[in-house]
Amino acid sequence: MPDELRAVLDDDAWLRAMLSAERALARAQDQPIGDEVFAADGLVADELLSEGRSAGNPVEPLVRRLRERSEHVHHGATSQDILDTAAALVTRDATAIILAELDGVATACAKLADEQRATVMAARTLLHQAVPTTFGLKAASWLVGVVHARGRLAKSGLPAQLGGAGGTLAALGDKALEVLHAYAEELDLPEPVVPWHTRRLPLAELGAELAVASSFCGKIALDLLLLAQTEVAEVRLPANGRSSTMPHKRNPVGPVLTRACAKHVRAAVSVLLDVEQEHERATGAWHAEWKALSDALAYAGGAASALRGSLEGLEVDAERMRANLGADTLSEAQRFAPEAREPEDYLGSADALIDRALAFYRG
Amino acid sequence: MPDELRAVLDDDAWLRAMLSAERALARAQDQPIGDEVFAADGLVADELLSEGRSAGNPVEPLVRRLRERSEHVHHGATSQDILDTAAALVTRDATAIILAELDGVATACAKLADEQRATVMAARTLLHQAVPTTFGLKAASWLVGVVHARGRLAKSGLPAQLGGAGGTLAALGDKALEVLHAYAEELDLPEPVVPWHTRRLPLAELGAELAVASSFCGKIALDLLLLAQTEVAEVRLPANGRSSTMPHKRNPVGPVLTRACAKHVRAAVSVLLDVEQEHERATGAWHAEWKALSDALAYAGGAASALRGSLEGLEVDAERMRANLGADTLSEAQRFAPEAREPEDYLGSADALIDRALAFYRG
Amino acid sequence: MPDELRAVLDDDAWLRAMLSAERALARAQDQPIGDEVFAADGLVADELLSEGRSAGNPVEPLVRRLRERSEHVHHGATSQDILDTAAALVTRDATAIILAELDGVATACAKLADEQRATVMAARTLLHQAVPTTFGLKAASWLVGVVHARGRLAKSGLPAQLGGAGGTLAALGDKALEVLHAYAEELDLPEPVVPWHTRRLPLAELGAELAVASSFCGKIALDLLLLAQTEVAEVRLPANGRSSTMPHKRNPVGPVLTRACAKHVRAAVSVLLDVEQEHERATGAWHAEWKALSDALAYAGGAASALRGSLEGLEVDAERMRANLGADTLSEAQRFAPEAREPEDYLGSADALIDRALAFYRG
Amino acid sequence: MPDELRAVLDDDAWLRAMLSAERALARAQDQPIGDEVFAADGLVADELLSEGRSAGNPVEPLVRRLRERSEHVHHGATSQDILDTAAALVTRDATAIILAELDGVATACAKLADEQRATVMAARTLLHQAVPTTFGLKAASWLVGVVHARGRLAKSGLPAQLGGAGGTLAALGDKALEVLHAYAEELDLPEPVVPWHTRRLPLAELGAELAVASSFCGKIALDLLLLAQTEVAEVRLPANGRSSTMPHKRNPVGPVLTRACAKHVRAAVSVLLDVEQEHERATGAWHAEWKALSDALAYAGGAASALRGSLEGLEVDAERMRANLGADTLSEAQRFAPEAREPEDYLGSADALIDRALAFYRG
Repeated sequence: MPDELRAVLDDDAWLRAMLSAERALARAQDQPIGDEVFAADGLVADELLSEGRSAGNPVEPLVRRLRERSEHVHHGATSQDILDTAAALVTRDATAIILAELDGVATACAKLADEQRATVMAARTLLHQAVPTTFGLKAASWLVGVVHARGRLAKSGLPAQLGGAGGTLAALGDKALEVLHAYAEELDLPEPVVPWHTRRLPLAELGAELAVASSFCGKIALDLLLLAQTEVAEVRLPANGRSSTMPHKRNPVGPVLTRACAKHVRAAVSVLLDVEQEHERATGAWHAEWKALSDALAYAGGAASALRGSLEGLEVDAERMRANLGADTLSEAQRFAPEAREPEDYLGSADALIDRALAFYRG
Repeated sequence: MPDELRAVLDDDAWLRAMLSAERALARAQDQPIGDEVFAADGLVADELLSEGRSAGNPVEPLVRRLRERSEHVHHGATSQDILDTAAALVTRDATAIILAELDGVATACAKLADEQRATVMAARTLLHQAVPTTFGLKAASWLVGVVHARGRLAKSGLPAQLGGAGGTLAALGDKALEVLHAYAEELDLPEPVVPWHTRRLPLAELGAELAVASSFCGKIALDLLLLAQTEVAEVRLPANGRSSTMPHKRNPVGPVLTRACAKHVRAAVSVLLDVEQEHERATGAWHAEWKALSDALAYAGGAASALRGSLEGLEVDAERMRANLGADTLSEAQRFAPEAREPEDYLGSADALIDRALAFYRG
Repeated sequence: MPDELRAVLDDDAWLRAMLSAERALARAQDQPIGDEVFAADGLVADELLSEGRSAGNPVEPLVRRLRERSEHVHHGATSQDILDTAAALVTRDATAIILAELDGVATACAKLADEQRATVMAARTLLHQAVPTTFGLKAASWLVGVVHARGRLAKSGLPAQLGGAGGTLAALGDKALEVLHAYAEELDLPEPVVPWHTRRLPLAELGAELAVASSFCGKIALDLLLLAQTEVAEVRLPANGRSSTMPHKRNPVGPVLTRACAKHVRAAVSVLLDVEQEHERATGAWHAEWKALSDALAYAGGAASALRGSLEGLEVDAERMRANLGADTLSEAQRFAPEAREPEDYLGSADALIDRALAFYRG
Repeated sequence: MPDELRAVLDDDAWLRAMLSAERALARAQDQPIGDEVFAADGLVADELLSEGRSAGNPVEPLVRRLRERSEHVHHGATSQDILDTAAALVTRDATAIILAELDGVATACAKLADEQRATVMAARTLLHQAVPTTFGLKAASWLVGVVHARGRLAKSGLPAQLGGAGGTLAALGDKALEVLHAYAEELDLPEPVVPWHTRRLPLAELGAELAVASSFCGKIALDLLLLAQTEVAEVRLPANGRSSTMPHKRNPVGPVLTRACAKHVRAAVSVLLDVEQEHERATGAWHAEWKALSDALAYAGGAASALRGSLEGLEVDAERMRANLGADTLSEAQRFAPEAREPEDYLGSADALIDRALAFYRG
């Protein structure tokens, strides 16, 4: 996981996000209090979380402390309002970092697609050589997937949440809808149509985008690992991993970690996809979200980051790719294109498809 | 599952879809063959699927039969092209039916939201009464979720697939990209940027939309079941289920089936979310898609359909809702709104939120 | 899926199992009725299931028909008693077939372990050659896993279920426990300590055993597919799969289907592992079990069966295995065993480990 | 999560476990080194894990440091040997704590089963009252499930792992099998038939036991939450949770956390059940195990612990249980037992079943 991603997902980040939500609430109501009430100084995230574990959530101990600073805090809100809004803020920060990593992956794929246009290799179906293709086209297909997943993730995100004890905004009086609007605006978060306390589709959808993006990173990682096999040796992966037994061996840690991370994202997202939450607050499904969301964001970032490094440091062995093309693969090609003599004569629209992919990438 | 959904997902439907893909391919190439070559008459879906099981997929036995009719079929395509395109067609037909069921759910929710504006009931958090709300607002939140999920599902769908043996379109010669374009147009399916044989994001995303939509149907079902409990009795569900022990007992089968179906959708979708497919054709992950996709579509339709019936036949007991409001719930309300005397005085913005939900529904 | 497995899991098999449960119940109570009351003749599984869909389960329509034959049926039982017991019977029949397939897999692995003791090949970590091993040892490790999984599956199974409407056996009067005992004995099923209507651990555990067994089959399949790659070519898989594009290409369908099946088992089992069922009958989780159980059994059998065929028809290319051993792999070996000249000198305890595996297999 | 569970699963615990594995390896080989070589003093878990992230695993940086202390360490082992064996040790320690929590749950259930024999309440199917039962019988069924799950978990566990770079034990020479035996004995861990580096059934099975145990805790928690509903009010849960909005409200945090934890266990276990690991070390699936295992253990302990507290502090309202029994429920009972006047007359074998459950518990 990139260090900066770790920093926006740790306990202090959640504390800051909760404070931002409380501050926005106070401001949206023109409460007569200064920013110092919402300062993190003097609050210990660890303590709040520990107390929060027995209280059911960390907002209650936080609000108790804030109320010692001012009576004008948390008016009209329930714990879930603050925690859900904090989740929206944490998600926004984490997503920005994940998107940057995916951008790096896309850039590396685009570079490969363009530079390896003429690099002939075997297309492989069911792990057997089928017909010739190019490494450029392979990278172009990776590129299209990453750009697509990135685009969907960029559009996802959680709205602000404000509903009060039962979702009616009752404690906010006549100005409730204005407060809701100002609150969302203050935080620069989408305003929900109605409070979404047990309508958890945004979380499930965000989770799905993270699962798809990281699983597709896993697909690229898998292709790289297969190409890097001793007997295939068509690429060399940056070998940062070391073996405790075989000191001279260098292990392709990047794609391995990408695949491991993608597994964790899918597992976490299985929790988020089950949005069957009871009435106006769920008995467990809501409480399970924080860890599932944090894990999904952290490991999605980890998957993209590890893959990016692998792609940026990738060494392509074009000669080996060409040499690996089996006689069967060539004669297969000739069956369709009898005039073909070299694999280069059987690449079909590979080049034009690469151009399409690059145009898609450039938007 | 609605009968019409069953009809677009059965073996014959898959056969017809494969034939449509082959016909579109021939037409896109201006092959000199008539529609009769692609007629389902004389082909037995059962036979093809049975042969297909040992061949790895049903396209190979189908193409063998079509080639007895004409030599101009399947030119330039690989089995996966036909099967993936058939999946896109089947998905489109099934999705249309699921959307219609979700429309029915939305209509029923909108009706409840509007009609039950004045029906006061307890909002419940962690299954305990919290503060007063209205059944109209509860239905309004359901409505927003269903409309949202429906909207995303309506936008999803699978593109046409055409790539040939290795994804290069090589066997189609110079006109490959024109053929690809004409093929997609003939089928009225989206044209992919580049062939998507192992870039399975569209399937994963479709699966996620189905999981979210049906799980949210499950949330509504769960709320209904909780409201229908003997001790709560705030709604009566259409009781089509009968007990073999207690003949006079009528069971709320609708929401029960919705929840069961939602479980199956999530399970099937867990297969689709893992898009780690090797190189240009996967060793298992592709073969697992057909059943996972069929199950996800079938059970998503089943979830929506069972819920729709439950909502359309729902009897709301407004008096009981009012009577169930506990003294604690009212005094809780009064703490915030000291002037409140009746629960009606503590409904906050419930009515305005319902209006927002209905406006969102009406688009 | 083996045909005989299909036959014990189809609608008729479930109907017969429900009839067996009803017959055992009548006999356990010494009801004065003959076997003809429980004959499948005249009952149409399709009809019952179709009616059962709207009733919530197929037992109610079945019992209605049986009551036309005799008034002495279904006394003291609830629908779930009959359906759960039918599930236990279907599971027993299906498990026997799955075990036979796993036996076939184990036999094939044992044969390879013994015959390929001297076949030197590369051990591969992270898909890179590490040090020499033997194909015999590889097969020995497969063997141990299959025997282990088989042993656990053989011990699992579902108990008889009899509890009546609420699990108290109230309608059975003073003889209830005797009836329960006789009922289980009649069916040759384990007798539960107390009725297990919402204590679904046996199903979850059975599911887990099926998931583990089929996923381990998937591991063997994956190894085979990797060894069969064009560039590795250390084994040749029986190639029953044909390509619609490349008629001369033979696809390794067996392990591919094994991996696809294993995915379906894991998905189905995710439903069974969630045993959170409400009170004395669940609102969805119970209804989701039938399909999840059927799928888990069917695809576990499919996974084992496809793998068995692949192993039984496997061709091992010992020369290629030896030739593939890279210079690095050998020098790595020499670093540890400086006196080693040939890979055969660096096989450590491979042979003794094979003997241990074979002894474990032979019990 | 209990604090003591946290302590056996944290980074320092993993470090100590790795050191224990290395020490046992040295002792099994009679290496001439003292215990001080394996002291944790001077080693910083954080550093090792951070270095381990880029190396692929933390053993390599650990071994580098130990080699500065003595040349006689890690002889014949590979990183996975040490990490898998450490996992076995951590698992044993964590499992002991989880078992103690499950014992606490069982004790509380047994107490309820015995004490609440005469407490009549409604059995509920599909969340509707069915017929009378007793709270004692309900608790007896919980008891049987917990004892069953506990028993299976107690029997599970991971073996010692020692295989060297390729699983042949080659670097250990002629004494390899003796070393393997002594190593396992030194650690008091099961000795594997053959090294299990990519035969991960023990982990998958352990995971399944944890999922089943915690999901069944979730079932009990769900029953408690349903019984504690405002409108049912048959039990009062120890209310440690506080509301930030409604200070006088006390939330039933225990069962809520149990259900949330059970979700996390199932998610983590979905990773462990997929044992498809390549050849002699997997490209991702192995690396994903540490977190999945740690999460599964931690949250299984959390689920059991939170439930235990809820059960130990449970207040049962026998009068309310009796009062809630609806007229329909009684008349239903009378239909079967016409002579029944009171619900007490329709409890069937409830009492005898409780005795069976208690006998099962007492072993």
